[in-house]
Amino acid sequence: MTVTLADVQAAARRLEGHVRRTPVMTSGAIDAMAGRSLYFKCEHLQHVGAFKFRGATNAILHLSQDDAARGVVTHSSGNHAAAVAMAAAQRGISAWIVMPSTAATIKRDAAVGHGATIVECEPTLEARERTAADLVASTGGVLVHPYDDPRVIAGQGTATLELLEEIPDLDLIVTPVGGGGLISGACVASPPSIMIVGAEPAGADDAARSLRSGMLVPQEAPETICDGLLTSLGEHTWPIIRDRVKAIVTQDDAATITAQQLIVDCMEQRVEVNAAIALAAVLDCGCPDGDRVGIVLSGGNIQH
Amino acid sequence: MTVTLADVQAAARRLEGHVRRTPVMTSGAIDAMAGRSLYFKCEHLQHVGAFKFRGATNAILHLSQDDAARGVVTHSSGNHAAAVAMAAAQRGISAWIVMPSTAATIKRDAAVGHGATIVECEPTLEARERTAADLVASTGGVLVHPYDDPRVIAGQGTATLELLEEIPDLDLIVTPVGGGGLISGACVASPPSIMIVGAEPAGADDAARSLRSGMLVPQEAPETICDGLLTSLGEHTWPIIRDRVKAIVTQDDAATITAQQLIVDCMEQRVEVNAAIALAAVLDCGCPDGDRVGIVLSGGNIQH
Repeated sequence: MTVTLADVQAAARRLEGHVRRTPVMTSGAIDAMAGRSLYFKCEHLQHVGAFKFRGATNAILHLSQDDAARGVVTHSSGNHAAAVAMAAAQRGISAWIVMPSTAATIKRDAAVGHGATIVECEPTLEARERTAADLVASTGGVLVHPYDDPRVIAGQGTATLELLEEIPDLDLIVTPVGGGGLISGACVASPPSIMIVGAEPAGADDAARSLRSGMLVPQEAPETICDGLLTSLGEHTWPIIRDRVKAIVTQDDAATITAQQLIVDCMEQRVEVNAAIALAAVLDCGCPDGDRVGIVLSGGNIQH
Repeated sequence: MTVTLADVQAAARRLEGHVRRTPVMTSGAIDAMAGRSLYFKCEHLQHVGAFKFRGATNAILHLSQDDAARGVVTHSSGNHAAAVAMAAAQRGISAWIVMPSTAATIKRDAAVGHGATIVECEPTLEARERTAADLVASTGGVLVHPYDDPRVIAGQGTATLELLEEIPDLDLIVTPVGGGGLISGACVASPPSIMIVGAEPAGADDAARSLRSGMLVPQEAPETICDGLLTSLGEHTWPIIRDRVKAIVTQDDAATITAQQLIVDCMEQRVEVNAAIALAAVLDCGCPDGDRVGIVLSGGNIQH
C-alpha cells in the first residue's frame, strides 16, 4: 500500500478546520549566514506544538463511525501521544496511550490534559509494542502508529503541501528524520523537481545508513539529545525514502544546539532540538546545493 | 532638517550587530481571508519587543563621545522607555526616563531592568515634557524624543529597509500611526512605486484628519485601547507623512481586537493591539488595493 499525492491532497481537505495552517517565516540574518534563502514552515506552532497532529488527525478522521467508536490506541513518548489524545478528543472518542515510564512529564501531562488514558510500560520498544498490542486486544481500539501508517504519512505530507502553496519554487526541502513519517510525507507531496533532504543525528543515523546501503537498517542503541529522532524507519516510510530522498545529512548534537540557539537569536522561536537539526543540516557543507530551501520546523515542545 | 534614504541606509549600517534583523512571517490562512499576500515584519520580536529599539539605538549611537557621556533623557509611558534604557545601557551611559504615574508596571519594570532612572510625573503631556526639560537642564543629558527626531525616524526606517531587502516587490506597506515615527521611516525607506498606508484608531485619528485637511491637527482626548497610538504627529513626522502617505485607514477597537486574535489563531504570535491595528486596516474595505502587502507588526508587549 503506497501513498500518493492524491492521498495528501485528500488529507488536506479532510484536515481543513482541524489543523492549523501554520505560518512560514524567513530570516534575513540566517539567510546571510547560509548563503541561501530559507523558508521555515512553522509546525512548532501547530496544535500540540508539532506536525504530529496532522498525521494523527488524518488517521482518526479517516476511521469509519464504527471503528472510531472503539477508540484508538498508540504508543509514544513524545508529540504523537499528545497529537492522538487531542485528535481523539476532537472526534469525541477514547484514546489509550502507551508511554514508557521514562517519558517526560510535559508530554505525559499534555496527553492527560486531552483526556487520554495513559498506560505505563518499561522503556523498551518491545515493551511498548507488546503493551499496545495487548491494549488493542483488550479494548478493541484501532492502532494509530506514530509514523508507519499511510494515513499518518499522508497527513504529515500536508505540511509540505501548504509550504509549496505559499513558496512553490523551492530547490530543496529539508526535514528531520526519525521514523520517517514527516520526510515521507514531504516526498509524496513534492514535485520531482524539488530535492528532498533528511537531517538526522549522527548518533541515530539509521536512515543515512539505510539510504547508503539500499537496505532498511534498524536503529540500535541511539545516542543523541534528539529524543524525537531515535526510532528506526518503518515498512511504509522506508521505500518512499529510498526511492525519493536525495541525501540524509547527519549532524552531531553540538551543531544542532547551535542551530537551535540561532533560531532563538534570529527569529525568537523556541523549537525542539528535533526541529533545529534541519537548520543545522542546511548550514553544513554536506547539504546539497540549492538557493531556495524549505525547512520544516517540526516541533516546539521543550522540557523546562 | 529632512530625513533621506541615505540616512536610513546609514542607520542600518550603524545598527548592525545592535538591533535584531527580525524575521518576516506569512500566513496562508490570513492571506485567504484578505485575498492578498501579506508579509508581516516581526518587530514584536525585536529587542525590548518593539521597533522602538531601532530609533532609540540609532539616536544614541549617533551621539558624539562628549554628548553621550552626559547621558540621555526621554519621556515615554511605553516601549520607547525600555528602548532608550537598553540602548543607553549598551553604550554604557546614563538614562533618565520620565514616566507618568499611570504607566503600566511591565513597561516601568523593563526600563528599570536596563538600569535607567525613572522619574515619575503627572499623566499629562504637558507634565511629561516639562519634567523632561527640567531633567535635561539639571543633568545635562541629551533629549531622545520618542518619534519627532530625524535620527529616530531614520532608525525606524530600517525595519522597512530590511523588509524590502527580503520582499522587494510590494505594492503596499501598512504600519500603525501614533506619533508617526514608524510610518515616516517607512516613507523614507521605500521606493515611490510602493504605496504607504497608515492604520490609526478611530478614537485617535489625528493623522487621518491631518492628511484630510492638509494641516497638522493635534490629538485631543483620545479614546482607544491602543495605548501606543495616542500621541499627535510631530514637526518632523508630519511633513513626511503629508507628502508621501497614500491613506490613513481608521479602525475601531473591536476590529483591532479581532485582528489581534486572528494573529494568535493563525500565527501563534502575541502582538500588541497597537500592532494588530495594521492587519485590521488591511482587512478593511477602505484599504487601498494592492496584492502584495507588507505589514509592520510594531510591538509585542502585552500587559497580563
